[in-house]
Amino acid sequence: MKFILTTLFLVATFQLSAQSDAENIKTIYTNSLTNGQSYQWLDHLSNQIGGRLSGSLNAEKAVQYTKEEFEKLGLDKVWLQPVMVPRWVRGAPEFAYIETAPGQTTSVNICALGGSIATPNGGVKAEVIEVKSIDELATLGQRNIEGKIVFFNRPMQADLISTFEAYGGCVDQRYSGAREAGKYGAVGVIVRSMNLRLDDFPHTGSMSYGDLPNNQRIPSAAISTNDAELLSGMLALDADLKFFFSQNCEQLSDVQSYNVIGEITGSEFPNEIIIVGGHLDSWDLGDGSHDDGAGVVQSMDVLRLLKESGIRPKRTIRAVLFMNEENGLRGGRKYAEVAKSKNEKHVFALESDAGGFTPRGFSFDCSDIMFAKIESWKSLFKPYLIHYFEKGGSGADIGPLKDDGVVLAGLRPDSQRYFDHHHASNDTFEHVNKRELELGAATMTALVYLIDKYGTETITNEEQIRD
Amino acid sequence: MKFILTTLFLVATFQLSAQSDAENIKTIYTNSLTNGQSYQWLDHLSNQIGGRLSGSLNAEKAVQYTKEEFEKLGLDKVWLQPVMVPRWVRGAPEFAYIETAPGQTTSVNICALGGSIATPNGGVKAEVIEVKSIDELATLGQRNIEGKIVFFNRPMQADLISTFEAYGGCVDQRYSGAREAGKYGAVGVIVRSMNLRLDDFPHTGSMSYGDLPNNQRIPSAAISTNDAELLSGMLALDADLKFFFSQNCEQLSDVQSYNVIGEITGSEFPNEIIIVGGHLDSWDLGDGSHDDGAGVVQSMDVLRLLKESGIRPKRTIRAVLFMNEENGLRGGRKYAEVAKSKNEKHVFALESDAGGFTPRGFSFDCSDIMFAKIESWKSLFKPYLIHYFEKGGSGADIGPLKDDGVVLAGLRPDSQRYFDHHHASNDTFEHVNKRELELGAATMTALVYLIDKYGTETITNEEQIRD
Repeated sequence: MKFILTTLFLVATFQLSAQSDAENIKTIYTNSLTNGQSYQWLDHLSNQIGGRLSGSLNAEKAVQYTKEEFEKLGLDKVWLQPVMVPRWVRGAPEFAYIETAPGQTTSVNICALGGSIATPNGGVKAEVIEVKSIDELATLGQRNIEGKIVFFNRPMQADLISTFEAYGGCVDQRYSGAREAGKYGAVGVIVRSMNLRLDDFPHTGSMSYGDLPNNQRIPSAAISTNDAELLSGMLALDADLKFFFSQNCEQLSDVQSYNVIGEITGSEFPNEIIIVGGHLDSWDLGDGSHDDGAGVVQSMDVLRLLKESGIRPKRTIRAVLFMNEENGLRGGRKYAEVAKSKNEKHVFALESDAGGFTPRGFSFDCSDIMFAKIESWKSLFKPYLIHYFEKGGSGADIGPLKDDGVVLAGLRPDSQRYFDHHHASNDTFEHVNKRELELGAATMTALVYLIDKYGTETITNEEQIRD
Repeated sequence: MKFILTTLFLVATFQLSAQSDAENIKTIYTNSLTNGQSYQWLDHLSNQIGGRLSGSLNAEKAVQYTKEEFEKLGLDKVWLQPVMVPRWVRGAPEFAYIETAPGQTTSVNICALGGSIATPNGGVKAEVIEVKSIDELATLGQRNIEGKIVFFNRPMQADLISTFEAYGGCVDQRYSGAREAGKYGAVGVIVRSMNLRLDDFPHTGSMSYGDLPNNQRIPSAAISTNDAELLSGMLALDADLKFFFSQNCEQLSDVQSYNVIGEITGSEFPNEIIIVGGHLDSWDLGDGSHDDGAGVVQSMDVLRLLKESGIRPKRTIRAVLFMNEENGLRGGRKYAEVAKSKNEKHVFALESDAGGFTPRGFSFDCSDIMFAKIESWKSLFKPYLIHYFEKGGSGADIGPLKDDGVVLAGLRPDSQRYFDHHHASNDTFEHVNKRELELGAATMTALVYLIDKYGTETITNEEQIRD
């Protein structure tokens, strides 16, 4: 009899708890869609501030603005975490053309890659060797490369459903192309933009020379996909054509900047820390609305939506706006370094850095047992069409926190349009849909709510029920 | 022993069959994403032809164009199915303003609703009574309504995840507002546009006077959401302000038009017909890219992708491009009428009429047993992030086919941005993403492939395996 009563009690409690989770999550979504603040914050960040390259004045404005907005929310703590960041500047607009005969030129759209050196004064003009991969360089050898511009033209693979996978299959050309071509005596590198669409926007992004000696470092730039097609087509007709480009970007000394952090201190387990974050810096060509203004304002709204929905977290919840994800990851590394030095216990970290598009779910970097626990919550997300729960990567900024204890996760929005805008001048506010952004903020908040409530320890159902 | 061998054989066959389904579906998606034709067709339909209101020259051009494109595909049959359609014309651009004192006016953006009558020559100017619902009219009564313009201002409900549900909760104002307000002696109706976003685009759409006598019929127009907010705010300050609007739209006589049909005749069961369709007509303000150029070109590409992927269907597959979904549904009714008169056996009908956005799945109008069969295919769609399989509505054009035998389905793309563009001048080609459109075409083709292969009879697993 006692057993039966206990069972009934447990069943009743679980039903109550499940119902209240569903209700709380509904409240979170309703608040985000009817009274969200993410879109207004993004409007300011994008239209009043703009592109926020590390070390720029705009980046500092964004630090001040988001700190002030955190302060308005009545959080328990708001602070700036100092971090030294690299400062690369683009300089005057780049200029490039294809020359098929003296005076016979066709202008093309390029932009310097982040971290690249400038061309010599007056630009560089040379014959072009087109390749599809870094491996091809070894086959061609110094003889075929020396004195030429190497044109990396491997397109993103269109038949992959995840555009991030397609990006991953191509980005070595951009990141390492100049370092590798420099070893063979090339005088410059032009890389097809990481864009699945054919259009006129060049897409920047970081590149690295590694430990290549200075005299082997060559300038590198991205070319729009339309112009990559044009150049390739013209090369097929005239292998001797010349390519000219001029850019005067420069790596300056490191400067002081900050991660911006807001916190709601946990009511029961203040020493167990959950973070949500995005990165406050962006590339300079657009206003960084999708990459990663969206993640910034969604993370800020997680704190606001919890308060707005009357949820007092048991654990400490921080929104961390990381500086310098794009060209250094200094903010992410600094945050992890400080956390370690203070012996802080991070139990969960969630990053939104894949655009402000309709959320589809999350990927998780965690144990199988923890993943099974998270999967048991899937039905709570179904009314919001959140269906994607997979093991996989999380986010660049939270990566340095990784150790055995912390569960890492990344928001996974619909990825189809992301690389239309990524790192290009059309990554702008009007390409973010208010509802899609708000659904993302609500989805992050709902997961944080569940993680806070049920913890990341993998405990039995009975213990969950008692929780 | 015989039993064991049979079992082994069945298991082996099923595994082979499942593997080949996965492979065939992969081929379909790859073909659509690397070699699709839907986007090029839509480019022509949108940019070379444009808005295709029933009875217009553009609608006839679209009939000719799609017929010719079907003919290029080497189908087994291509034909036009005659249908008489209504012809409503907008006339000169509408004009409207709010007047707070003689000569003190603020222009606002309106458009006549499809089917509305014109305003009297010189327009109509009257005081405004704002309501949130048709029910409010009865409460207000003739005394408060007569001689006034009724302003229906119930917004779409933002916290609903399905924007179609939010639309369904509002559209009675647009469709029946004038009919109901006319009964109380109103002189005109202004309806808040069916749009979740605040912007300046008025959204048209069909309305009906029902059997209201001519002398009670009043002109009705949609106002942009920004201007609806403006008007409502100004009314709160000055209940006596006047609203002026002028439109000279007109309902002309019915004209001859066509459904356009292409067919691959079934190799084994030619008398069992599967159709996929969208509607060729559109509203006149934009170019009808999402509504429903997308559904048209996706349906066309279903036939092409089957051929391209080397799939010879057992059943007859038709793509039906319906005429006059927007303001009459004559094409859908005619198709069903002819099918019935010829005693054709339709087993499955799928419509795409919810925009060319990332596909999420389908809704089905069918028996529970058939739905369970379809659900057993979900894992085949998982690699393509197609997760939404629910019972529900299908599509307006295929609705008239409904009887006990036919399974009806609607493609369900992501709905968040649909009503930003629906029936407005910004329903244009540049708002359709190529990959999202192509994913939709592939998803439709994959479902048609499975339905064709396994049929819609709800049979046992063993029978499926033998199939």
